Amino acid sequence: MKAEIISIGTELLLGDVLNTNAQFLSKRLMTLGIDVYRQVTLGDNGGRLKEELTDALSKVDLIITTGGLGPTVDDITKEVCADALGLSLVLHEESYQKIVAYFKNPDAIEANINQAMFPENSIVLRNPWGTAPGCIMENSDGIRVVLLPGPPREMEPLFDLEVYPILKKDSTYVIHSKEVYISGYGEWEMAKIASSLMNSANPTVAPYAGKKGTYLRVTAKGTSIVECEALIAPIVHRIEALFGEHVYGYDGDTREGALIALLKDKGLVIATAESLTGGLVASTLVNVPGASDVLQESYVTYSDEAKHRILGVSLDSLERYSAVSEKVCYEMATGLYHRSQCDVGIVTTGYAGPYGEEVGMVFIGTVIGGKVRVRKERYSGDRSTIRRRTAIRGIDYARLDLMKSECFT
Amino acid sequence: MKAEIISIGTELLLGDVLNTNAQFLSKRLMTLGIDVYRQVTLGDNGGRLKEELTDALSKVDLIITTGGLGPTVDDITKEVCADALGLSLVLHEESYQKIVAYFKNPDAIEANINQAMFPENSIVLRNPWGTAPGCIMENSDGIRVVLLPGPPREMEPLFDLEVYPILKKDSTYVIHSKEVYISGYGEWEMAKIASSLMNSANPTVAPYAGKKGTYLRVTAKGTSIVECEALIAPIVHRIEALFGEHVYGYDGDTREGALIALLKDKGLVIATAESLTGGLVASTLVNVPGASDVLQESYVTYSDEAKHRILGVSLDSLERYSAVSEKVCYEMATGLYHRSQCDVGIVTTGYAGPYGEEVGMVFIGTVIGGKVRVRKERYSGDRSTIRRRTAIRGIDYARLDLMKSECFT
Repeated sequence: MKAEIISIGTELLLGDVLNTNAQFLSKRLMTLGIDVYRQVTLGDNGGRLKEELTDALSKVDLIITTGGLGPTVDDITKEVCADALGLSLVLHEESYQKIVAYFKNPDAIEANINQAMFPENSIVLRNPWGTAPGCIMENSDGIRVVLLPGPPREMEPLFDLEVYPILKKDSTYVIHSKEVYISGYGEWEMAKIASSLMNSANPTVAPYAGKKGTYLRVTAKGTSIVECEALIAPIVHRIEALFGEHVYGYDGDTREGALIALLKDKGLVIATAESLTGGLVASTLVNVPGASDVLQESYVTYSDEAKHRILGVSLDSLERYSAVSEKVCYEMATGLYHRSQCDVGIVTTGYAGPYGEEVGMVFIGTVIGGKVRVRKERYSGDRSTIRRRTAIRGIDYARLDLMKSECFT
Repeated sequence: MKAEIISIGTELLLGDVLNTNAQFLSKRLMTLGIDVYRQVTLGDNGGRLKEELTDALSKVDLIITTGGLGPTVDDITKEVCADALGLSLVLHEESYQKIVAYFKNPDAIEANINQAMFPENSIVLRNPWGTAPGCIMENSDGIRVVLLPGPPREMEPLFDLEVYPILKKDSTYVIHSKEVYISGYGEWEMAKIASSLMNSANPTVAPYAGKKGTYLRVTAKGTSIVECEALIAPIVHRIEALFGEHVYGYDGDTREGALIALLKDKGLVIATAESLTGGLVASTLVNVPGASDVLQESYVTYSDEAKHRILGVSLDSLERYSAVSEKVCYEMATGLYHRSQCDVGIVTTGYAGPYGEEVGMVFIGTVIGGKVRVRKERYSGDRSTIRRRTAIRGIDYARLDLMKSECFT
C-alpha cells in the first residue's frame, strides 16, 4: 500500500510553523507497512489542493491531509476533497444537532451548517481535543482520503485512537522496533562491534546517533506486535551480551534515569560539584521523577575562590595547574566527598569557550565510596554542546564506576 | 517571484528525520519577498524527482532542493536536475583538483569523479561545513534551480552566505522583522496593551508566544533592509514606552543574557540556591558567554537536610511549614546571602510533580543587597516545564528587582 501526506496551511509555507505532522504520520504509516510515496505542503488554496489530489489519486491508495478543517472561509479541505473524489456532501445528523444546541439562533445555525456537512458514506472522526471533526472518505476505486485537523495536539490523538485501528485492519503486516541505548562508543565503533547482527533480514539491526545518544534499532516485520516482539527479543539479548554494562536502557530510557534507578536500588545518595557544567549535571538528574530520594546536594563552584572556599581546593593547585586540570578536578572530588559524605559524587571542570585554544578540554571526576577517578576528555561543538556532553558523560561514568565498585555491591 | 522547495531523502519519508529545512528556507524566501508555492518531500528516487522538477519548472521561477548531494549511488539530485533542465555535466577544475589531492590513487579518483562534475554554466557553492558542494543552475527560460546539502548545519550557513546574496539581487523588495521580547505578560495581555499598534499596515505588529518567550514581531516591507529598519525603529520605541523595563531584549536576546549584562554593567556578582530547579537557574546563566565573571556560586539543596545544613534553614520552619513555603523560601534566601555574600541571589522551592495536589506551586525568592523578596507562583505543565518556567521567571525577577533596587544604582 502506498500513501501521500498533504499538509495544508499558508502558515507552513511562510515558515511560521514547523511541520511535525508529516513526520508523525510517516512514522505511524511505516509501522503499518504503508509506504509514504511523497509529502506535500500547500497553502489554503482550493485550486492547488484539487490539482494535488487528482495527481495523488492516480498514484497512491491512501491520502492523508492535515489542516484546513476549521469554520472559516480559508478552510476548504473537506469541500475540495469531496469534489475531487466525486462525492456529494450530506448532512451529518449528530454534528447538526451539536450546532443547533450550541448556536440556538437560526441565522447562526444556517451560517455554520457547513460544519455538519460530510461526504456521503464517510466516517466522521469526532475530535474531543478541538472543534473541527475529521473524516475518512473513499472513492469508487476504493482509494481512501483521511482528513485530519492541523494542530498536532488534536491530530496525533485523533490519528492514534480513530484512524490507526481502521488502517490496521487492512494492513497485512506491522513493523515494530525496539531501541537499545549504548554508552561509551561512537556510532561507527558500535556498528563495528555489532556487525555480526547487521546482516539479519528480519529483524533488521541499524545503528543511530542523535539527541537520544548512540543506539541500535532492532526492527521486525510480522503479522502482529506480539510476533514482532518475539522476533526482537533474542537479538536484544545478543546486543546485551556484546555491550555488557554499556547498555543502559531501551525505548526512551535515559542515562540519568539509569543512574537514579541504580542508586535507588542500592539505597545510595549522590552529590555533584560543578564548574564547567554550572548545575547541568544536577538539573539533568532532577528531571527524573523521584530524584529527590537520591540527590543529596550540589555545588556550582564556578570561580576559583568558590572552589577553594566551598570544596577546599588548594590555592596552590589552582595557581600552579589552573582550574582546568586533573589535580584540581581530583581535589574538587575529594572536597565534595568530605563536605557532603555522599556515596557517589560527580565533579566537572573544563573550557566551554567560546574563545581559547583549549576549548573542549574537560576533566570529569567520579567519587564512589571515597575513591576518586578523574578522566580527561575532549569534546567539540559550541558552548552548550560541550557542557551537555560533559554532563551526560559524567552521569554515565558514575553509573559505570558504581556498577564496578567493590564498596557497594 | 514564486518558488518550490523540494526536500530529498528517504529518511524524511520514513519519519526518521524531522524536516526543518523546508521551514528554514520558507522563512528566508519570505524575507526576500519570494512566495513559496509548495513544499515537497521525496525519497531518493530519480524518476519521481524528475517528474516533480518537470512539473515545478512549468509553475515557479525558482526551485530549491536539499539533500541527495553525497557521493553514494543514492545521491542523484545533481544528475537528475541537470537532465530535467537539459544541461550537460562538465568537469569543475577546482573540485577535480581537490579530489586528486585527496584520493591520489587513479582508480579512486576515477570512482569519485562525479563529485567534480557540475551542470554547464552553474555556480558551484563551496561547502566548508561538509563534503558535498551545492550549485545553482539555470535553464534557457531563466528558471533557477539551487541544489543544497541535506544536513541543516551545512545547508543553513551555505544558504545564508552564498545563495541569499544572489537571490537578493533579483528581489524587488525585502521583508525585515525585529522581535521585541517582553516579560511578565501573557500573549493576550501583551496584545491588549499594544492594541493601538496592531492596526499599523507597514510595519505590521503581531504578538507571539513560544519557546523564545512572549514577544511582538514588527515586520516592515521596503526596498532595502536599511529602509525597513527606519520604518521599524519608531514602532519599537513606542513598544518600549508601553512596556518599560519589561522589554528585556531583541532578536535572539534572552532573559539570562539581559541579567548577566546588567550585573556586569553594575560590577555585581550573583549566587543561587535551588531546590525545585535543581541547578537549572545556574546552568541557564552559565550558558551565557562571560557568565564566569558574575556567577559566584550555587547550591542545589534538594533535601530538607541540605537546606538546613548548607543554608541554615531552621528545622522548625521545615517541619511546621514544609520545604515548599514562603517561610522556607525566605530563609533559603537569607541563608544564601549570609553564606555567599552575593550582591544578587535567586532561590527556588516548589512542587514539580508528577504526583500530588500541589504540583506547580512554586516560591521564587530574590535577594538584592541583603533585601529578600518572595513571590508565590502557580505553573502548569509537566515536570520539566514547571522547572523551566520557574528558572526563567526567577532570572527575570532578579533583573526587575535589581533595576528597581536602591542599593545598586
